[in-house]
Amino acid sequence: MLQTRGFALIVSAPSGTGKTTLTRHLMATQPNIALSVSTTTRGARPGEEEGTHYFFVDKNRFETRIEQGCFLEWAEVFGNYYGTDRGFVKEHIEAGHVVLLDIDWQGARQIRDNMDAHDVVSIFIAPPAQDKLEIRLRGRKTDSEEVIQKRMQQAAAEFSHWDEFDYVVVNDDLAQAKVELSAVLVAERLRRGRMQATIQPILKTFA
Amino acid sequence: MLQTRGFALIVSAPSGTGKTTLTRHLMATQPNIALSVSTTTRGARPGEEEGTHYFFVDKNRFETRIEQGCFLEWAEVFGNYYGTDRGFVKEHIEAGHVVLLDIDWQGARQIRDNMDAHDVVSIFIAPPAQDKLEIRLRGRKTDSEEVIQKRMQQAAAEFSHWDEFDYVVVNDDLAQAKVELSAVLVAERLRRGRMQATIQPILKTFA
Repeated sequence: MLQTRGFALIVSAPSGTGKTTLTRHLMATQPNIALSVSTTTRGARPGEEEGTHYFFVDKNRFETRIEQGCFLEWAEVFGNYYGTDRGFVKEHIEAGHVVLLDIDWQGARQIRDNMDAHDVVSIFIAPPAQDKLEIRLRGRKTDSEEVIQKRMQQAAAEFSHWDEFDYVVVNDDLAQAKVELSAVLVAERLRRGRMQATIQPILKTFA
Repeated sequence: MLQTRGFALIVSAPSGTGKTTLTRHLMATQPNIALSVSTTTRGARPGEEEGTHYFFVDKNRFETRIEQGCFLEWAEVFGNYYGTDRGFVKEHIEAGHVVLLDIDWQGARQIRDNMDAHDVVSIFIAPPAQDKLEIRLRGRKTDSEEVIQKRMQQAAAEFSHWDEFDYVVVNDDLAQAKVELSAVLVAERLRRGRMQATIQPILKTFA
């Protein structure tokens, strides 16, 4: 019995573009979808659970696993390691799941280098304009002026890599962006290479 | 000013699979979509209008245009020629339209050979099973037993080419098939290569 193969779905966006809202919508509305759980060396915060929010490991263990090629992508941020485990993603794809990876353009590039191209689909979420992104970031009322300026610079840097992604969704109207993001997921499941397990039994009825 | 580029959308299916219902749904619900108008040497039937249902030409003219390479695909059926005009499709694509081509696997193959791969998206609509297709064909009550048997044979032949298409939609539940067909169209518009005209003005606001 053939098993329909899933794929890794990379979603990247500048901070403030609404990525979290959009990926939560996907998780809530699409069947057979799993959020990738990262491995990290930072300590668990209150409420964070092993295997749900992160896989927590110490620094030595993480570095050993880097050497063993266990990570599809990894990075060091403020002295802590974060990585995506190859086995975790592989198991989900083989079980027919879409594995959602919320990573930046650098992580996306590593994933593409380390996986079969047929198993990776990537989407860039773009803001509708610079001024609208700034309004959104200020609207949160959580960041200082300095942090906002830094986020805007990072947004421009992230945006410059938009054309490394397979699809681009502009989040101007949230309802439309939800429809578009879902459409990419639905369409990618229908690709010839992923329909073998569905079509072979039907073909047999014609034999 | 960049113009968003459209694409040719080939939809093929065995007879009785619900292709007409599905493509009508696309035409009624999607913006910037045009149905390809074929050129033919057969005479106009009552109610058929030049440029709406077909472009009517005589046999000599058609054969000259074959020699000139004017057709993306053509075929002779019961002594009449039918073809898809290259200029018609090109103009629509350059205007940002999706041009819907309702052709069989042989026409689809010719289109792929004669167009830039980036400008062609193809979908195969599959029936859910042989017996269900037969029930549908009998349910029409328009065909003789002989015609039904012939259609079933043609269906099997058409089906054997399913894996030459980019996407496969199984029409078991009509509502779901409508969602899936629309998702392919929406997703394909979001491909990086077709988003240049949308993204460039946004990128400029970040400069």
